[in-house]
Amino acid sequence: MINPVRPAKRRISILGSTGSIGRNTLDVMSHLGDREAFEVPAITGKDNIDLLVRQARQTGAGFAVTADPERYNDLKSALAGTGIEAGAGPAALIEAGLRDTDLLLAGIVGIAGLAPTLAAVAGGADIALANKECLVSAGDLFTSAMAKGGGKLLPVDSEHNAIFQVLEENQRQAVERIILTASGGPFRDHTREQMAAVTPELAAAHPNWSMGVKISIDSASMFNKALEMIEARHLFDVRPDQIEVIIHPQSIIHSMVGYCDGSVLAQLGVPDMRHAIGYAISHPRRRNLPVERLDFAKLARLDFTAPDEIRFPSLALARTAMQRGGLQGAILNGAKEAALEAFIAGQIGFLDMADIVAATMDRLDDGRAAHSIEDVYAADREARAVAVAVMRESA
Amino acid sequence: MINPVRPAKRRISILGSTGSIGRNTLDVMSHLGDREAFEVPAITGKDNIDLLVRQARQTGAGFAVTADPERYNDLKSALAGTGIEAGAGPAALIEAGLRDTDLLLAGIVGIAGLAPTLAAVAGGADIALANKECLVSAGDLFTSAMAKGGGKLLPVDSEHNAIFQVLEENQRQAVERIILTASGGPFRDHTREQMAAVTPELAAAHPNWSMGVKISIDSASMFNKALEMIEARHLFDVRPDQIEVIIHPQSIIHSMVGYCDGSVLAQLGVPDMRHAIGYAISHPRRRNLPVERLDFAKLARLDFTAPDEIRFPSLALARTAMQRGGLQGAILNGAKEAALEAFIAGQIGFLDMADIVAATMDRLDDGRAAHSIEDVYAADREARAVAVAVMRESA
Repeated sequence: MINPVRPAKRRISILGSTGSIGRNTLDVMSHLGDREAFEVPAITGKDNIDLLVRQARQTGAGFAVTADPERYNDLKSALAGTGIEAGAGPAALIEAGLRDTDLLLAGIVGIAGLAPTLAAVAGGADIALANKECLVSAGDLFTSAMAKGGGKLLPVDSEHNAIFQVLEENQRQAVERIILTASGGPFRDHTREQMAAVTPELAAAHPNWSMGVKISIDSASMFNKALEMIEARHLFDVRPDQIEVIIHPQSIIHSMVGYCDGSVLAQLGVPDMRHAIGYAISHPRRRNLPVERLDFAKLARLDFTAPDEIRFPSLALARTAMQRGGLQGAILNGAKEAALEAFIAGQIGFLDMADIVAATMDRLDDGRAAHSIEDVYAADREARAVAVAVMRESA
Repeated sequence: MINPVRPAKRRISILGSTGSIGRNTLDVMSHLGDREAFEVPAITGKDNIDLLVRQARQTGAGFAVTADPERYNDLKSALAGTGIEAGAGPAALIEAGLRDTDLLLAGIVGIAGLAPTLAAVAGGADIALANKECLVSAGDLFTSAMAKGGGKLLPVDSEHNAIFQVLEENQRQAVERIILTASGGPFRDHTREQMAAVTPELAAAHPNWSMGVKISIDSASMFNKALEMIEARHLFDVRPDQIEVIIHPQSIIHSMVGYCDGSVLAQLGVPDMRHAIGYAISHPRRRNLPVERLDFAKLARLDFTAPDEIRFPSLALARTAMQRGGLQGAILNGAKEAALEAFIAGQIGFLDMADIVAATMDRLDDGRAAHSIEDVYAADREARAVAVAVMRESA
């Protein structure tokens, strides 16, 4: 009898395993062989302790962490007798990032994802990146930490993952432009007057992807796309003027790369985040995924329109942030978060968000750069505070 | 002063230099550095001696050949004093293919392109292939000759070139399907009754590409796409059931590859054959080409419909030829040529062409395979003769 050599299991830690990226990641892993194929050194969640515990048991995780220190006892008692270590709070999140792993799925939303992801980067892990702040707020720091750590950076956002798939590693100098597709959100055909009257409930309804409220509103204002432009700049080392955005309501072409020979390469798929997750987890191989296949006859058509930067000033703000460089990405993002919360609370209108971000970016346009993660946190806090002040002044 | 090392000039021979592929190839070469960058061991043409001579002088070709033996003296006297050798006729065409070169652009149309291309293949040259018969009629012979010769096979057809661009060399086993796009030709929305009444003049008007009469009619009947299906099978080593055809009237997506993870990769560009030619000449680099860039907002939309295999039986005939294998590709092509000539001469109707090809394929379905190029020629001749007989019987 032949005794086949069993390949070592791939170790994957997941930051934010109870969120939508995390749940989809576990779904993909389960399809690709589950505990036969993967080890999970660490997973982290927040409020949903029940789900976190179920996930930890199912994957046989080594370490399970809740971001909320007050849920430590709940988590610890639920894991009693499983052999799975429990942790809670910011230090435990970082500890999760430090656990030896081949790949870290960085799925924690917001600035809180920064420190634990950087911990794994320093340890040399490959990073499947779904957290926007790592590049938007801390782009220069993050990319130089990746270079030092030596791991591969695999984008999990469908747009950047698409670009990654069609970016020829040995032809980087031949890249002419990056073309990010955007659904355009629910207001792509609204007038400015209609947009001014939009409520948070209307803004939270996304046509193609099912997402959380904040992400849906960011998609409606195209701030989501603005952040993606800044991410693309850091991920693919292109100039701001090489990044284009095109409205493509069907979200079938996930993004494209234009080369100096006039060729445009595109990655297409149904809107299903398991595409990008599965690609990042399997890279450099492609493995069978249980996602729906594209049927072009059923699609019938794909549409494209230029984004209107008057109605969607967020795109111009991203260009400004990229041109100014330094901490302007962190400031754009912090101010956007503050404005977004005020919009959800009914304190400001939909179109006010971009005005507040613009004013905050201008006030904090002092050429500052990030020398450490603390500088990023400080810029984020200051941007939020200045944005609040701007809102108070104009109220 | 620094004395830069001058890279060796790339040697490119061109079979069919006075045709549309050949002229576009010389245009691209002239853009990419002309005589500073390229040497031209041999070029070949047919009737247009003036153009052939101009091309030979401009490129400093070593050997210029006309396919027509009766034009030898014209060519020789026009080249007198240039140092450029003149040749004529089938043996000289083969001699052109045998001249030492790095790359051979196989742009001769029809079965006449087979022998000179195979000569270059045996010499180990890379082949930029624009001749359909090499794969349609002699696929098994040709691919095994390529493997023996050791050169790279670079498709110049826009569809196959697109597939080549997005086919990941190390992920061949992950390919699920090849999706050939088709403009659908001028009759894509015609009823069968309307198609039955089509004249050669109507059929020769192609909506997107400017081409010769025969190719235009092949595009209108989708026999062109049928041949491309057979080519794709040999080029990419896929099963017949892995080859799909989708009507895409704008011809912007030049073709696609679907992978087992659900991702579809596509190459897009304006309909300009210099894309594929430039890619093949420059491979594995991408170099700047003077082709128009895609503007997605201006495109506005891309459409897709399933091809109707009742109105376009050529596609089903290609599947039959692939399933039967052996010389059925040569027979399909030979019968199609005979039927096409009869249609152009007004002897048969537009829809009769497919019936005649089908009947010919059935009569010659005896499992024969090609052991030599002579077998291919014989099958081609026999198919043409049988097709003529079929037409005579049903007249």
